[in-house]
Amino acid sequence: MDLKSLGEFGLIEHLTGRRERYGQSVRVGIGDDAAVIRIPGDGFLLACTDMLVEGKHFLREKTPPAALGYKAMAVNLSDIAAMGGIPRQALVSVGWPGDCSLDYAEKVYEGLYDLAGEYQVNIVGGDTVYAPVLVLNVTVIGEARKRAVRRSGAKPGDKLAVTGRLGASAAGLALLQAGEEEKRGIPAEVVKDLLDSHLRPAPRVREAGLLVATGNPSAMIDISDGLAGDARHLAVAGRVGVLIYGDRLPVDDYTKAVAAAMQKDYREWALYGGEDYELLVTLAEEKVAGVKQRLAGAGVSFSVIGEIIPGKEGLRIERQGKTGPLLGKGYEHF
Amino acid sequence: MDLKSLGEFGLIEHLTGRRERYGQSVRVGIGDDAAVIRIPGDGFLLACTDMLVEGKHFLREKTPPAALGYKAMAVNLSDIAAMGGIPRQALVSVGWPGDCSLDYAEKVYEGLYDLAGEYQVNIVGGDTVYAPVLVLNVTVIGEARKRAVRRSGAKPGDKLAVTGRLGASAAGLALLQAGEEEKRGIPAEVVKDLLDSHLRPAPRVREAGLLVATGNPSAMIDISDGLAGDARHLAVAGRVGVLIYGDRLPVDDYTKAVAAAMQKDYREWALYGGEDYELLVTLAEEKVAGVKQRLAGAGVSFSVIGEIIPGKEGLRIERQGKTGPLLGKGYEHF
Repeated sequence: MDLKSLGEFGLIEHLTGRRERYGQSVRVGIGDDAAVIRIPGDGFLLACTDMLVEGKHFLREKTPPAALGYKAMAVNLSDIAAMGGIPRQALVSVGWPGDCSLDYAEKVYEGLYDLAGEYQVNIVGGDTVYAPVLVLNVTVIGEARKRAVRRSGAKPGDKLAVTGRLGASAAGLALLQAGEEEKRGIPAEVVKDLLDSHLRPAPRVREAGLLVATGNPSAMIDISDGLAGDARHLAVAGRVGVLIYGDRLPVDDYTKAVAAAMQKDYREWALYGGEDYELLVTLAEEKVAGVKQRLAGAGVSFSVIGEIIPGKEGLRIERQGKTGPLLGKGYEHF
Repeated sequence: MDLKSLGEFGLIEHLTGRRERYGQSVRVGIGDDAAVIRIPGDGFLLACTDMLVEGKHFLREKTPPAALGYKAMAVNLSDIAAMGGIPRQALVSVGWPGDCSLDYAEKVYEGLYDLAGEYQVNIVGGDTVYAPVLVLNVTVIGEARKRAVRRSGAKPGDKLAVTGRLGASAAGLALLQAGEEEKRGIPAEVVKDLLDSHLRPAPRVREAGLLVATGNPSAMIDISDGLAGDARHLAVAGRVGVLIYGDRLPVDDYTKAVAAAMQKDYREWALYGGEDYELLVTLAEEKVAGVKQRLAGAGVSFSVIGEIIPGKEGLRIERQGKTGPLLGKGYEHF
C-alpha cells in the first residue's frame, strides 16, 4: 500500500482519524479549513497550516519570489477566512536551497510581509533551515468572529453561492506555463490580471466578515481544490448532496478569452482548476440578496451557483436544463 | 551575498528584524524560544514552529520513523517548556517523498501521537503534500503559566544551571553514525540509552513547571544549539556575560565511556554537541537548593554550571582554576 493510492484526504484521515482528544478545548480538529480551539475567557482561536514545496506547488523559475511569499501567506489567510475568522499571527518556516541568494530570500519575505501587513497579521515566529528544494510552511493563528463557520452545516434547500469569479487562477496557471507563441494575441492586461489571480490570490478575509454578518451561512469553505472538489467536501461534511448550476458559473470575459485563445474549456477551469481562493458558501435563499448587495458595496460579486439537495442524490450538475452526475476531478495534492 | 555567509540567526534577523507590529497583542515575537501573544481575557498564548528536513537534520536510513515523528514534536514541546509554558495543540505538515510507504507514514505519526499524548497535546491540523525529501514541520500552541520566561532576563550575579545531563545526545549521534567496529565493547544498554537521548529527547515540560514555581528563573532557554551556543543566546539577549564552570558540566558515565571508546572529547560534546533539549536557566543563588530538591523529587538532576557576569566580560569558561574565552562553535543550521 503506498501513499499515492490513498490520496491526500484518504491519507490524512488514515493517519489522524479516530484519535483521542485531550480536554475540552478542541471544538474542530483536523478536517475543516482551520482548527477551532476554545481559549480561557470567551473566545475561540483558529489555527491552520500549509506547506508549499518547489516542484510540486510551484516552479521556482516560473514564480517571482515575492509572489511565492505572498501565496504561502494567502492560502492560510484564506483558510482562516473560510471559517469566518480574523487572522492575527503567523509563523513561517522556510527551507532554503543552497543556490538561493540573499536577494531572493528578501523578496520571498517581502511577499510574506506585504500580504501579512495588508491584514495586520504579525509574523511572530518561524524556522530557517537548509533544504534541497525550496519549502515554505506557514501557520496562521486567528480569532473566530461570533461563531466559526464549518464545512458541515449545509442543509437541503440552502443555496450554494460563491464570491468573485471562478477559473481565473487556472487560466493564470495556463498562461504561466505557456510559451510566447501560445500567448500571442492575448492582451497584456488580460495576461497580467489572470497571472495575478494565480500568483497573488486575494484571501477573502473582509468578504468573509461581511458574509457571516449578513448571510448567516450554514457552511463555508475556500476553493483551493476546485469547485467540484470543494463542493464535494461540503457534501461529505454535511451529509448532503449538491446540485451545481453549470450554466451559471461566474467565469469572466478574460478567462473565457484565454480559454478560447488556448483552445481550452473554461468550464473545466471553473469546475476543476482550483486555487481560486474564493469563498463557497451555503445559505438560506432569503439571505442571498442582502449578501449580494453588501459584497457589491465592497466591489465583489456574489453568485448563486447551485443548491443543496438530499444526500442520497449525491453531487449533480445541471447544464442546458439537464442534470447528470458531477465528476470528482478535484485537484488532490497526490 | 549568499545565505550561508549570514548564518541562520543572521538571516532570520536580516529578514525579519525592524518590522512593524500591529496591535498590542504580541508580547514576544521572533527571537525567543516561542512567541508570546496576549489573548482576550487574561491569558497568554505561546507559539513556536520547527522544520526538520531529511539530509540536513536526519538521515532516513539511520532514523526509525517513529523516532522522527517523536523528535519533530519534541523539539517544539521543548521550546514551549523553555518559556515555562504548557503545550496544548499541534499542527503537523509533512512533505512525503514518493518512496515512503504507508507503513512508514503510520510509524512517523505513531511517534508524533505518542509524544503528543504523553503531554495531552492535541494534533488539531496539518497539511500533507508530496516532496522530494521528507520534510516535517510542527507548530505547537501552548499557554503561558503565570509568566513567560524569556531569554533576556539574566542579571550579573545570577547562577547558570542546567537540568539533566549534557553531551548524551552528541554521544548518541556519534553512535548512530558509527560502524559496528567502532561500537565494539560498548555495552548494549549504554548504546540504547544514548541513542534514545539523541532520537527521543524528553522535552522538559514538567520540569519547566517545577522550575518556574520554585526557582523564579530570570531567563531560560532549551539547549538545542549546544551549551556554548545557547549560553551565548542568553548573553546576547540579556546583554550580560557568562562564565561557565568547565569542570562542573553534568556529563554522565555512559557519555564518558562512549567518548573514551571512540576517542572523542566528552567536554566538546557537552559544550558544542547540541540537541540535549535540557533547560538552561539563570536564577538567584538562594533559589538553587530548592529547585534541586524539587527536581530531584521528579528524578531529574539540576546542576549549577556557571554564573552571569557583566556584559563587557563576554563569554568565558573556567577550567582547573583558570578562565579563558569560550569559543562560539554553537551548531548553526547553515
